[in-house]
Amino acid sequence: MNNEKVTIIGAGLVGSLLAILLAKRGMKVSVYERRPDMRIHETEAGRSINLALSDRGWNALDMADVSHMIREISIPMHGRKMHDRQGNLSFLPYGKEGQSIYSVSRGELNATLMTLAEQHGVKFFFNQRTVDVDLENKLLFLENTITGQTTTEKAGVIFGTDGAFSAVRLRMQMTGRFEYHQQYMEVGYKELTIPAGPDGEHRLEKNALHIWPRGNHMMIALPNLDGSYTCTLFFPFEGKPSFDYIREEGVTDYFNAVFPDAVQHLPDLENEFENNPESSLVMVECFPWSYKGNLVMLGDAVHAMVPFYGQGMNCGFEDCVKLCNEIDKGGSWEEIFDRFAVNRKPDTDAICELARRNFTEMSDLSGDPNFLLRKKIEARFSKKYPELWTPLYEMVTFSDLPYRVALTEGNRQDKVMKEIMMMPGIEEKWDSSEVEEYMLRLCKASG
Amino acid sequence: MNNEKVTIIGAGLVGSLLAILLAKRGMKVSVYERRPDMRIHETEAGRSINLALSDRGWNALDMADVSHMIREISIPMHGRKMHDRQGNLSFLPYGKEGQSIYSVSRGELNATLMTLAEQHGVKFFFNQRTVDVDLENKLLFLENTITGQTTTEKAGVIFGTDGAFSAVRLRMQMTGRFEYHQQYMEVGYKELTIPAGPDGEHRLEKNALHIWPRGNHMMIALPNLDGSYTCTLFFPFEGKPSFDYIREEGVTDYFNAVFPDAVQHLPDLENEFENNPESSLVMVECFPWSYKGNLVMLGDAVHAMVPFYGQGMNCGFEDCVKLCNEIDKGGSWEEIFDRFAVNRKPDTDAICELARRNFTEMSDLSGDPNFLLRKKIEARFSKKYPELWTPLYEMVTFSDLPYRVALTEGNRQDKVMKEIMMMPGIEEKWDSSEVEEYMLRLCKASG
Repeated sequence: MNNEKVTIIGAGLVGSLLAILLAKRGMKVSVYERRPDMRIHETEAGRSINLALSDRGWNALDMADVSHMIREISIPMHGRKMHDRQGNLSFLPYGKEGQSIYSVSRGELNATLMTLAEQHGVKFFFNQRTVDVDLENKLLFLENTITGQTTTEKAGVIFGTDGAFSAVRLRMQMTGRFEYHQQYMEVGYKELTIPAGPDGEHRLEKNALHIWPRGNHMMIALPNLDGSYTCTLFFPFEGKPSFDYIREEGVTDYFNAVFPDAVQHLPDLENEFENNPESSLVMVECFPWSYKGNLVMLGDAVHAMVPFYGQGMNCGFEDCVKLCNEIDKGGSWEEIFDRFAVNRKPDTDAICELARRNFTEMSDLSGDPNFLLRKKIEARFSKKYPELWTPLYEMVTFSDLPYRVALTEGNRQDKVMKEIMMMPGIEEKWDSSEVEEYMLRLCKASG
Repeated sequence: MNNEKVTIIGAGLVGSLLAILLAKRGMKVSVYERRPDMRIHETEAGRSINLALSDRGWNALDMADVSHMIREISIPMHGRKMHDRQGNLSFLPYGKEGQSIYSVSRGELNATLMTLAEQHGVKFFFNQRTVDVDLENKLLFLENTITGQTTTEKAGVIFGTDGAFSAVRLRMQMTGRFEYHQQYMEVGYKELTIPAGPDGEHRLEKNALHIWPRGNHMMIALPNLDGSYTCTLFFPFEGKPSFDYIREEGVTDYFNAVFPDAVQHLPDLENEFENNPESSLVMVECFPWSYKGNLVMLGDAVHAMVPFYGQGMNCGFEDCVKLCNEIDKGGSWEEIFDRFAVNRKPDTDAICELARRNFTEMSDLSGDPNFLLRKKIEARFSKKYPELWTPLYEMVTFSDLPYRVALTEGNRQDKVMKEIMMMPGIEEKWDSSEVEEYMLRLCKASG
């Protein structure tokens, strides 16, 4: 496939990384992007400002030889720092000693990938909205978003990486027997800023992801390089509480009551709450992902998930790795796309499901003593019997185990831990040999 | 709302009936339809040729004062006539004495409704494809499918009745937080013809719906007025058997083995099998159904279902009744649409679910002696205790009970009948007082 002309639609994180990977395989890559060049113009509002990179993401960046550059702009987070209603803190590590996820700016990461892609000869065309695609003849119908001019481009093999509201997928949706599901969480989000301290220092523990878990809603905060944090409020659109409910109660009053230790760090709270958008959280699943050997879709375009497992970008990056592995194995494009999609779909289904479930874990359980106890028991057991037990979060975040395996294994662990947590006096004897032996027995019975 | 200008998109069965109902309420109705006028041009292939009208459909036709005309072009079917692999027949009535569903030609019914609508002052615009809709400003972007000319029409309040592949819904899909699911059955269908006998007579029992149940596939046949039957083969797209599998085995050989008593009545089998399309069966669910007071969708556009309960058209017609009831209660269009959709959605969800389940009932169970015995026990009990037991099929087909109530009640009945069918010796004592008393007890316990 050396010198083969290929076309990517969408220059987001997945499209930009894929561009590098395909260019490294000798292909001539053109990328069409609806937005202006983000390296020149400000990014638009309504998308998350920072993201958490974990192992699967790093693996993909390794494949593109760009990890070293991204390490420099990322902040390790060793665990979750929980803030309760009284402002008390507790800490739960993400994994074993030395395992971290990394806060990184979406904009900087994307810009870096684009620039590297250009260095590999990739051509980017900005302000080019894909209006429609002729799947049979690989034609792109584009509209210049500035001049309004429409053009038709003869594309190479097409890679649709145009995100949750994919134009490519809209065309696929009209082909025969296309399965498609789009759903929204009843919860939306709004971003707020904790600025850096007077000397540019971080006002909260820097190397942690902060969570204010409050049942059916929560706030989280990820550190930025400049000493600030980006907070994300996750609230239902309707009911009590909701964004409207906070407004009615008075924003500062509400925060004083519910997030008391955060208020002092949010000097622009009222203004940001009023002016920052309330964004919705879409979930997308679909199949097939490809059309003959002409087009394949990957990333959010085929599996937009809610952000509660921090795997959206990591999963999209892993898509690129899996697709490139199939390309390297050879065969026609149609064969490559078929192998890729059929193998990958059960894994993306699994992480979409895990992400959905994790809202409860983050917002509700992470403030619950029983939940923290369970995590302690799991960590202890896992340390002693690593071959018998890897905590679900670690399988997802610190391994490249197929997501579907993690889901199945996680379900099995849930059953075991349900039994363990029902043991009388578990609060006192959680680290006893009795608990350990029972857990061993349950593991063997369920394995 | 007298003299108010309203716009319907789609002149299918639901759109044409709605046009009459709105015109009777004094509105000025325009209908835009993508296809040519079916009264002048042949209908296109790939849609079912005849349909079964039942009580909900008749109620809607009554509301439009057109039932008497449709009765004349419909054939009552009193029950299911089952054909087994040896050609043996059995009969299962649909309901009580005098209760029937009615076979009617889709084309004739649609044409009749259109002509009646015109008599009420409705204006139809044919060959007008809806390319897009401006939901805020109620603008239609239309393309004349013959000349290719595009026009923009200022619409009145818009009613989207443009079916399972609705253009209106595609626009709604891009509005905020629109929930949308589109799925296909693994089973598709192909139509075949049993022509009339030499003297124009029906070659099979006329007043029945014929079923050749064969497990994961089946054939059915509905009578036409001209003495012919339209057969529909329901087969998986893949595996054994499938349409491809039949082709490999040889069509006539396969039919001789599996539908032996039908072959003699299918003189053009090989040719029809080769040339008639294999159509897919789509299921659609979505919400919301309306946009402010500007637009509402009904019929297949919001709840396309599989055909196995014979309720697609009946449900769409009942949508029209429910919507008109809300119009008659008054309020703003937005209030009317909200009341309609919120009340109606749980019912259309229920019938979609029942339709899905009924494939198994028709194709698998209807050939099963246990299933037939269960139906006999239910019929006997229902006759004696009508206030305690109306069979699910009757609630759906011969009543206007909300579909959601039928579903809940059906689930309850399933539980009771599961117990009853496990009684030792039920085959012999099915009509004994022991069974009856046990059933009474179970009914009271579950009610």
